[in-house]
Amino acid sequence: MTTITAVTAHDVRFPTSLSMDGSDAMNKDGDYSAAYVVVHTDDPDLKGYGFTFTIGRGNDLCVEAARQRGLPLIGRSVEEAVADLGGVYRDLASDSQLRWLGPEKGVVHLAMAAAMNAMWDLAARVAQKPLWRVLADMTPEQLVDVADLRYLSDALTRDEAIALLEAQAPTRAARIRDLEARGGYPCYTTSAGWLGYSDDKLRRLLQEAVDEGYRHVKLKVGASLDDDIRRLRIAREVIGWDANLMIDANQVWDVPEAIEWMGHLAEFRPLWIEEPTSPDDVLGHAAVRAAVAPIGVATGEHGMNRVLFKQMFQAEAIDFCQLDSARLASVNEIIAVYLMAAKFGVPVCPHAGGVGLCELVQHLSIFDYVCVSGSLENRVTEFVDHLHEHFTDPCIVENGHYTLPSLPGYSAQMHDASVAEYAFPDGGYWAGRAG
Amino acid sequence: MTTITAVTAHDVRFPTSLSMDGSDAMNKDGDYSAAYVVVHTDDPDLKGYGFTFTIGRGNDLCVEAARQRGLPLIGRSVEEAVADLGGVYRDLASDSQLRWLGPEKGVVHLAMAAAMNAMWDLAARVAQKPLWRVLADMTPEQLVDVADLRYLSDALTRDEAIALLEAQAPTRAARIRDLEARGGYPCYTTSAGWLGYSDDKLRRLLQEAVDEGYRHVKLKVGASLDDDIRRLRIAREVIGWDANLMIDANQVWDVPEAIEWMGHLAEFRPLWIEEPTSPDDVLGHAAVRAAVAPIGVATGEHGMNRVLFKQMFQAEAIDFCQLDSARLASVNEIIAVYLMAAKFGVPVCPHAGGVGLCELVQHLSIFDYVCVSGSLENRVTEFVDHLHEHFTDPCIVENGHYTLPSLPGYSAQMHDASVAEYAFPDGGYWAGRAG
Repeated sequence: MTTITAVTAHDVRFPTSLSMDGSDAMNKDGDYSAAYVVVHTDDPDLKGYGFTFTIGRGNDLCVEAARQRGLPLIGRSVEEAVADLGGVYRDLASDSQLRWLGPEKGVVHLAMAAAMNAMWDLAARVAQKPLWRVLADMTPEQLVDVADLRYLSDALTRDEAIALLEAQAPTRAARIRDLEARGGYPCYTTSAGWLGYSDDKLRRLLQEAVDEGYRHVKLKVGASLDDDIRRLRIAREVIGWDANLMIDANQVWDVPEAIEWMGHLAEFRPLWIEEPTSPDDVLGHAAVRAAVAPIGVATGEHGMNRVLFKQMFQAEAIDFCQLDSARLASVNEIIAVYLMAAKFGVPVCPHAGGVGLCELVQHLSIFDYVCVSGSLENRVTEFVDHLHEHFTDPCIVENGHYTLPSLPGYSAQMHDASVAEYAFPDGGYWAGRAG
Repeated sequence: MTTITAVTAHDVRFPTSLSMDGSDAMNKDGDYSAAYVVVHTDDPDLKGYGFTFTIGRGNDLCVEAARQRGLPLIGRSVEEAVADLGGVYRDLASDSQLRWLGPEKGVVHLAMAAAMNAMWDLAARVAQKPLWRVLADMTPEQLVDVADLRYLSDALTRDEAIALLEAQAPTRAARIRDLEARGGYPCYTTSAGWLGYSDDKLRRLLQEAVDEGYRHVKLKVGASLDDDIRRLRIAREVIGWDANLMIDANQVWDVPEAIEWMGHLAEFRPLWIEEPTSPDDVLGHAAVRAAVAPIGVATGEHGMNRVLFKQMFQAEAIDFCQLDSARLASVNEIIAVYLMAAKFGVPVCPHAGGVGLCELVQHLSIFDYVCVSGSLENRVTEFVDHLHEHFTDPCIVENGHYTLPSLPGYSAQMHDASVAEYAFPDGGYWAGRAG
């Protein structure tokens, strides 16, 4: 028997604000950061790694919350825990005192994501498989047993969930072969379009994206209408009218303002407008969607929990679901969102970027295609080419596709040297700079 | 000129779990706690006090978040800050890195509430008035200037907000006199009905409530249908059928379960069912409301922000709005919710109890009657008779009414001795016990 002996949480921050990487109309100066969790065991060769993602200040809050979330894991049998990750999840979620601070949202939920991501990574390492294959090897009943279906039964019952998964089960192997044959899961790039970049840099990066085989690119909008029009014109000049152009307002508009502003950008035929308003506003997104069609509405990177997504689906508020692998409470909650999306016919195009999110979402997208939706139609997963060098099993993107991960785990482990260098505030990089 | 010199945050926890005070179907063992903020100035006789409320573990997260929220206040002119609390609020809310951890929900939003509550207390002390009178002396334009209307314009425009307030402005003074004449603002008690109490204690406390003049009492339900039926039968035996009986499920049900369970409790004719399901589920509450009418639906103590309440009103999901004075980001966000409630015709019956919430909400309810809704119809504010002895200006409840506060401030200051005794984990009470 192997036992969990400790759960440590680490404040790791990268100084991305210096280069304006990640700048948008709401978030001008983020330092991409991780509240990084390591689940230690009495086997020196077995640890689980996970994290949640933040953009700097307050990462310490998530670190401390993750440490507290991890306390009930200490002393557990690894074998029992990885065989019942639904039970582990429910145990951690049942802390009513921490629950009060959400419930199921904000810092304590981000911390839940970090802790459970590490447990899923641990489970995949025990199984000696990449996480996506762990999921692909689970039966429909096993998947539904680990999924958090609480508060969802008016939209999706347990029986419906099993039926959805059973319908795809016989053809799972064929879809894995299909992904291998096409070189992986399709992705798009946001690396070109940050708001802080000059027109020349924008043009150059867009051309590079086209040259690298991308058929989808995304630009940030919402700070200045004149700037948006000029930048979208540049984008169409470079990528043409057959490629897909997505735009992202990062929550800067009220609902009427979103509708009016999009009227001015419609000529550039965006595939979707992302985060047009408050991420909490289900009815607002539904109103925007009705007004801007056929432009799609996308949201989800700030989608706080499965209850929010349930309503987005019920209200027919979105065309694309952009769930976040470090904001939802790990695979347990994410499976539930994928199942609802499949029932309601909404494609899931996960949010990624930041630090490590690409490493996680590649597993989720593969799982969706193999086990849940069985479809690639209208599905494309975000990719941002930053900070992958800090991971021991970085995602590999070629010709606009995420190559299928092959190493055991959830691809969530950082190099020890990176954790040491960027530990905040005392690591090598920050010492003398922080504060 | 007076200057803000420091903002300190304190972890204060009361061991209420020992007596099962506050026990309900979701929260079985809370230790009522405050992340207590003191805004210090260079005038030794002038400080501002505020807090957010939690139920124990994780209070430290709110304390640290409140400390970070308070940093931009240091060095400001008190006179300029209290003259522009809308600007102060927007400055604190504009921290995009902390915003990522919500946005506007969870720990960072609770911390925003604590910091801004202290600033409103400071402003009222500077004005030498109780907070409710500060608000009652502001013009409609001044009130709308401090209110956070972001993301609300599809439900309430600035012009509509001003018109609502102007309609009530000429008769403000008459309503203040009316409250004074009737002995304050009407309230109800939850002290009797906690789930952990025995039937005998329930019966005795209900009788005491009736004897003290209460016309509304509230019981916790949702753990066991048989227990609920037995306890509601006792309640109706004691209070009769003319008094109002409210019940509170504290989020334990899925939507279909709530509807079914309420079918079994309808015979006891509750005025409302509170928190029947996830507090995030606008559409779920609308479905429950449609199914259980004429029983009302109430929610709000976990209502995370004004965007959630906007949708509750738009979807006609609730009959009673139970906003929380320490979960919403203080008066700035609360005014916005009151304005929307008035426009949509939903009475606001604020959540209270915990520690210090009663002290705050009495000011808000008076403000609503005097300035916003102009009505007491279907309005009753929660009162729980716990922990008031720790406050320097405790609320005074007589004959089922909150007496109008008269001392300067937001009634948010605790006795220094209480803060010292219950400081966690090193205060007199906790030293040796904590952990």
